[in-house]
Order: sequence, then structure tokens, then C-alpha cells
Amino acid sequence: MSSSELATPARRPGGRSARIRSQVLDAVGPLLVEYGYDGLTVDAVAARSGVHRTTVYRRWGDVGGLLADVLEAAEGDSWRPADTGSLQGDLTALNEEVQAGLTEDPPVALALIAASFRSEEATAALRQFWDDRYARCEPVVARAVERGELPAATDHRKLLVTATAPLYHQLVLLRTPPDPALPAEAARTAALAASAGAFTVATAEGGGKTEEQGKAG
Amino acid sequence: MSSSELATPARRPGGRSARIRSQVLDAVGPLLVEYGYDGLTVDAVAARSGVHRTTVYRRWGDVGGLLADVLEAAEGDSWRPADTGSLQGDLTALNEEVQAGLTEDPPVALALIAASFRSEEATAALRQFWDDRYARCEPVVARAVERGELPAATDHRKLLVTATAPLYHQLVLLRTPPDPALPAEAARTAALAASAGAFTVATAEGGGKTEEQGKAG
Repeated sequence: MSSSELATPARRPGGRSARIRSQVLDAVGPLLVEYGYDGLTVDAVAARSGVHRTTVYRRWGDVGGLLADVLEAAEGDSWRPADTGSLQGDLTALNEEVQAGLTEDPPVALALIAASFRSEEATAALRQFWDDRYARCEPVVARAVERGELPAATDHRKLLVTATAPLYHQLVLLRTPPDPALPAEAARTAALAASAGAFTVATAEGGGKTEEQGKAG
Repeated sequence: MSSSELATPARRPGGRSARIRSQVLDAVGPLLVEYGYDGLTVDAVAARSGVHRTTVYRRWGDVGGLLADVLEAAEGDSWRPADTGSLQGDLTALNEEVQAGLTEDPPVALALIAASFRSEEATAALRQFWDDRYARCEPVVARAVERGELPAATDHRKLLVTATAPLYHQLVLLRTPPDPALPAEAARTAALAASAGAFTVATAEGGGKTEEQGKAG
């Protein structure tokens, strides 16, 4: 679980290097949306950003490197999930953000997801971006446990995937028009299932079924 | 909700035309897996299928038309969801099939989903394919209602999206290795939420819990 701070200390010395990075990365999304993955070349990024192409090649290598760094840079924000006072409220707020992101105009997030089908580096970076987001959402589950809304041993990642997956399914795969009711519905569904113990994990301490199987081998 | 029978009567006269169709369509998946969307050309399909290129151009137009017809042809099968005797069992069986499809080798389903990000025709055809599958799964919900496992006014599509979306999320978007436990877990989650009324729709007769039980037959 590498925060962007940990992952890229050398790349964020501030000053000129950081400025060049944001100039270059700011050019990637719009080019991707406008011309698609095929139109996203290092030369096009250099031209649009005003940074010399040899600098871009040296630092990012290729389009995969550029896409990966866009996602890594996105991890560098200070985003935290909203604290609304209830599990369902927190998940609804999260889903509203997911839906807003997937329907934003220009559709940068959708374009990045589409690009992940063209580049292994982008796939890996997107997975890491989501892992980072899931980790940041852990407090949503911890708070719900504290409030007594959830069993203590609730798997936060499974709960979060269940809460958000229907939005990705509808908006990214089925590409149906956004349903304003879906964020709250999917949140309610996940909260109901979670309260019913759907994401409870057997704890190492033997929290559920006595795990005393002993390795008879 | 057009079944393939309704949608393509003219295209399935049997005999030579049907033979040509399957020869051509059988060439699409392997080419897509092997060379990607960029390597999938009408000429390549003609060459691999042994059907003359002018025939392919005349009948399918372009790659989008070919992809759409592959998906339309897939709707022509006789697939029905398994009847295991319980909602959770039916959803688990469905999810096992989804997971098997998304991890098959060669990865034709994944390649078709990836291609849907390149072609509007493929997107529309994929959406229709899934709509057809959701419709065919309606009996899973109807049977559960009959058994008293679910409220009568359960939205089958929402339940099915919730049950299957985590698999697509993990295998298509996050591209994590398949988790053998996930099909059953996601099925259990959806069944728990459904039993708790997560997918209950307000009925036209007044959204009440008192369902008019008329027309039992």
C-alpha cells in the first residue's frame, strides 16, 4: 500500500521538476479524451505540454509510463471518504463521488479505464490506485464497527467492492445512462448485506468456528 | 427484449448462408485474442474464414458489424440458468459460469469486452447480450419468490447486477487473479441483501407491502 509520498520521493523535489511533471501529466487526460489511446503519443504530450520531447521520453519512456504516472499522481491527493455518521450514508457519499467521476465531462476517468485495456502499465497503475482508495476507505468500516452497525471482523475491501461495483458495471461495462438513484441503492444493498454478516471474516484468534484444525500432516 | 430468434430471422435461413455466417463469426474471436482489436480487420477475417472478402464486406460492413454479430449469434444459444433449488445456489451457479467465462482460455469474452471500448456497435451489442442474459435469469428470482425466499416485488435485474458485478469488477477492471471463493461469496451477499428487501420495488398499485396476490396461475 504505497502512498504517492512513499512511492515517488525523488520525483517530488518541488520546484522545476514538479512543475514539469504537472505540465506533462495535465496534457495526458485531455489528449486521451480527445484523440483516444491511439492519438496519445509522447510527441503529442510534449507538444501540448510545452515540455521538450526528449525530457518526456527520458522521464516517462512511453505512453504506458505516462498513464501510470497520471494515476500515481492522482494518488497523491488528500482525498478521504466523507464521515456522515452512518454506514449507509458514508457508502452513498462514496458512490455519489464514484458516479460523478465516471460521468464527468470531459470523461477522463472513463478514458483512463478504457486505456487500461491497451496498456499493462496502465492496468497495474489503475489497480494500485483503486487499492489505495480501498485502503483509505477502511475508516468507513471501522467507524461502522465502532457504532455497532457491523460485526467487528468485517472485510472492508469486500464490502467496498460490493458497494461500488454496480456503478462500474452500469456506467463502464453496460454504459447505461447514469441512474441518480443508483448510488444510494447500491450503498443500501451493501450496508444491508454487511449488517447481515456477508463480509465477516474468520479472525485469526478463532473468532468464529474454532479454527483448531491442527496440521495433521 | 429481443431473442435472437426474433432479431435475426432473415439471417438464419439455414443452409449456405448460415454456414457462411458461422465460418466468418468463428474467425473473429481467435483473431481478436491473437492480434487484438487493431489486428482484427475484415480482410483478416475473410482470410481466416475462407469466405470471400467481398461477401464479408457486403454482409457485415466492418469490424463493428462483425463484433456485433458475434454477440448477436451468442444470444442464439439455448442457455438457461441452473435450477439448484435455492436462490443462493442458483446465483452461485450463475457466478461460477461468469467466472469461468471471464477466465476462459483463450480469453474471448475478455477480448470482446475490451473491444467494446473501441466500437460503439460492439458496446451496444454487448449491452443487448447482457440484457438478454438478465431476462433469461428472471426465473431465478421468480422461483425464489415462489419458495418464499424473496419479497414478491423483487427487481430481478438489480439483484442480478449486484450478484455478478463483483466478478466483473475483479476480473475485468482490477484484473486480479480469479478467487475460487468469490462466486459463492458474491452470490451469498446478493441473496442476503435480497432477502432483506434491498431490491424490492414499489408496485404500481400503491407501493404497499400488501401485495395483491391475484392471478395466481
